[in-house]
Amino acid sequence: MAVVAIGADKQGAEAPQLHRTDLPNGLTVLSEAVPGARSVAFGAWVRAATLHERPEEMGVSHLLEHMVFKGTRTRSAQEIALSLETLGGSLDAYTEREHTSYQARVLDEHLGEAASVIGELIFEPLLKPEDLALERKVILEEISMVEDTPDDIIFDVHNRAVWGDHPHGYAILGTRDTVKSLDIPHIRALQERAYHPGRLVVAASGRVEHDQLLEVLDRAGWLTRARGDMTPFALDPVEAAGPHAEHVKRKDIAQTHIVLGGQGIAHGDSRRYAFALIDMLLGGGMSSRLFQRVREELGLAYSVHTFSSAFADTGVHGVYLATAPESAQEALDAVREVLREVASEGLPEADMLAGKRQLRGQLVLSMEGVSSRMYRAATTALYGEPFRSVDEQMALVDAIDEDTVRDVARDFFDPDRHILVSLGPKAVR
Amino acid sequence: MAVVAIGADKQGAEAPQLHRTDLPNGLTVLSEAVPGARSVAFGAWVRAATLHERPEEMGVSHLLEHMVFKGTRTRSAQEIALSLETLGGSLDAYTEREHTSYQARVLDEHLGEAASVIGELIFEPLLKPEDLALERKVILEEISMVEDTPDDIIFDVHNRAVWGDHPHGYAILGTRDTVKSLDIPHIRALQERAYHPGRLVVAASGRVEHDQLLEVLDRAGWLTRARGDMTPFALDPVEAAGPHAEHVKRKDIAQTHIVLGGQGIAHGDSRRYAFALIDMLLGGGMSSRLFQRVREELGLAYSVHTFSSAFADTGVHGVYLATAPESAQEALDAVREVLREVASEGLPEADMLAGKRQLRGQLVLSMEGVSSRMYRAATTALYGEPFRSVDEQMALVDAIDEDTVRDVARDFFDPDRHILVSLGPKAVR
Repeated sequence: MAVVAIGADKQGAEAPQLHRTDLPNGLTVLSEAVPGARSVAFGAWVRAATLHERPEEMGVSHLLEHMVFKGTRTRSAQEIALSLETLGGSLDAYTEREHTSYQARVLDEHLGEAASVIGELIFEPLLKPEDLALERKVILEEISMVEDTPDDIIFDVHNRAVWGDHPHGYAILGTRDTVKSLDIPHIRALQERAYHPGRLVVAASGRVEHDQLLEVLDRAGWLTRARGDMTPFALDPVEAAGPHAEHVKRKDIAQTHIVLGGQGIAHGDSRRYAFALIDMLLGGGMSSRLFQRVREELGLAYSVHTFSSAFADTGVHGVYLATAPESAQEALDAVREVLREVASEGLPEADMLAGKRQLRGQLVLSMEGVSSRMYRAATTALYGEPFRSVDEQMALVDAIDEDTVRDVARDFFDPDRHILVSLGPKAVR
Repeated sequence: MAVVAIGADKQGAEAPQLHRTDLPNGLTVLSEAVPGARSVAFGAWVRAATLHERPEEMGVSHLLEHMVFKGTRTRSAQEIALSLETLGGSLDAYTEREHTSYQARVLDEHLGEAASVIGELIFEPLLKPEDLALERKVILEEISMVEDTPDDIIFDVHNRAVWGDHPHGYAILGTRDTVKSLDIPHIRALQERAYHPGRLVVAASGRVEHDQLLEVLDRAGWLTRARGDMTPFALDPVEAAGPHAEHVKRKDIAQTHIVLGGQGIAHGDSRRYAFALIDMLLGGGMSSRLFQRVREELGLAYSVHTFSSAFADTGVHGVYLATAPESAQEALDAVREVLREVASEGLPEADMLAGKRQLRGQLVLSMEGVSSRMYRAATTALYGEPFRSVDEQMALVDAIDEDTVRDVARDFFDPDRHILVSLGPKAVR
């Protein structure tokens, strides 16, 4: 149970350090003390989520994430809700595509309570049938909410268009049908198979020392739990659909919502800094090319930006915009023109230099909060990557070269290879 | 130009301090150094916004806020957009009901650039007619976006129902008609009357020293600009409408969205800590009574929470929920029952104690980021309040007594005095 300091940020007066311990039961524990912080961000990531679901069980990861809050061995739903909130802290959970996470933010003296309640949620949920009947209704309302929010549902539509029946195309919430048919045995089977130390990563950042974190986890029973089933969750290789267009007719809304995009870059891809540079310069803020062209010069949209998510095996990315139905085609054509220029010509040297400076600044600013440091710590374990200090990341940004940018631009940003989805009164082409 | 240290937080190893300078030209400058921070949050608040608009000019404050980004004396729209983004920082602006603010977050070495660009936005915008033609279209798209988002537009509907034709009931974006008719002279008149040092408060927090902030503002020309027109913006006294119900029919959405609420507490009201306590315990998180009753016990909603805004002269607050049309009435009845119990009985001692602990913890956690400290600093000047350290605020929380809670509960949380608005396929009563 050696504690190894595996990296440090050199900038600023005080250099934080990442510590990692790999325990005999398979649990990975990471921590980074952040000088000046009064709080701690504490999170646990389960390496199981939507990607590992069978079609008829779509949404089971998300349903389990809801159900654990309905009661555990020693706590009622209300006691779980009160546990950290009554201390002024917060407790949240997220089902993402590859991982399900349970996260807390508390004052440092309440770290023990955070580890205790999250430990119970993960290892000792009751999963009672009468609770399921209620929670199903809540999730059906959540599905309705997403459906009623055009700039939310459009991304589900796009994922389905890009990945088809592969789990990358699933709705994380499931469908109304799967949510209605999922039952306690499905939920319990997932909890037993996935919610054990061998599939868990714990990370904490803020006013926390690594030894103290290990002690707190020990007292909350994390270190003595047995590693469970380690059979890998099978995941078929995935390939994005070919370029095509899909439209969802909604007569009653004032705007046409558009996503144009496709397969993005995977987490471990060495070209991802180049990808991030292009993505940012195209649609990452109000100085970006798409914002300048579509909003500032043409006045055709209030909201236009790029988005991207990276996973272990692939990624997804694109451009989102919302615009009046009568100008939607013009706006989309302008987006394509901006993308096409970058895909065919790459980036001029001046943009490369300015973009690198922008990325470097963002890196430093993004690492100021305790939660973002917790994420960075967890990510090193979840994707098996080396820990990179901000200085090391900045060096990687500086090393982005023109050829890689040209390759990435051609491979990922050519609109003729993209999938188009629209939602609104009128289709676009 | 004396620099006065007017308060300090005693907790934590290092105690930050608020500094304030009132300059001869009317500008108020506040700062708080936050140990350990690498960045600075810098903001300027203009004491003019929606509340000071005439009906035919509704939306002019927001339109001006957009227009200043289209070009200033030395910077084009693109140069403004690039100014801080290219350094990795961010530049944003917000039109709220009482104030319009311009905010930046940058690395400490870029504070001068932030002060320079925000100074130009405020004091030297070009406000050209050809830019207005484009920006009008962008704002019309922004209005469409709000209209298409049920859990956004419902709050505009509620404000109008509570405040009628008073500016508290205006849409901050204006209406399609006012946005189309507003012209450069209206925009310029507002900029000239309101955007000068006498109506401005500047606040900065993070890695910043007060003397350095004053130097930076001086170099960017803030200190030598003349105070302008100080005629107060007239604001009629406001009274909330009597209890009634309004429904906006939308056949095409899956949920009914409901807001039940009314006049809230004003910023300077000494009972506002009691108000915050009740508001939090009723609908502030998953341990709150409304969440527990409507979501956990009844399974009728995914989203149910309270909301509140305080202004100098009044406030607005209420409960928001979204639920299936067929169970909307049942959910609303449950909300009313929870409110009625608190309005008639106040809070039991155990809830008071737990609630106070929760509020104290939230106070400490909320003060960790540089932006929240900048807000707290600005607020002291905008509402003429004494600076209160976290310790002093905690003492005020501890001092909340049962009688005040009972009065506030009766005065503000009785559902029979509330205004009900709903949006969806079916009306509720």
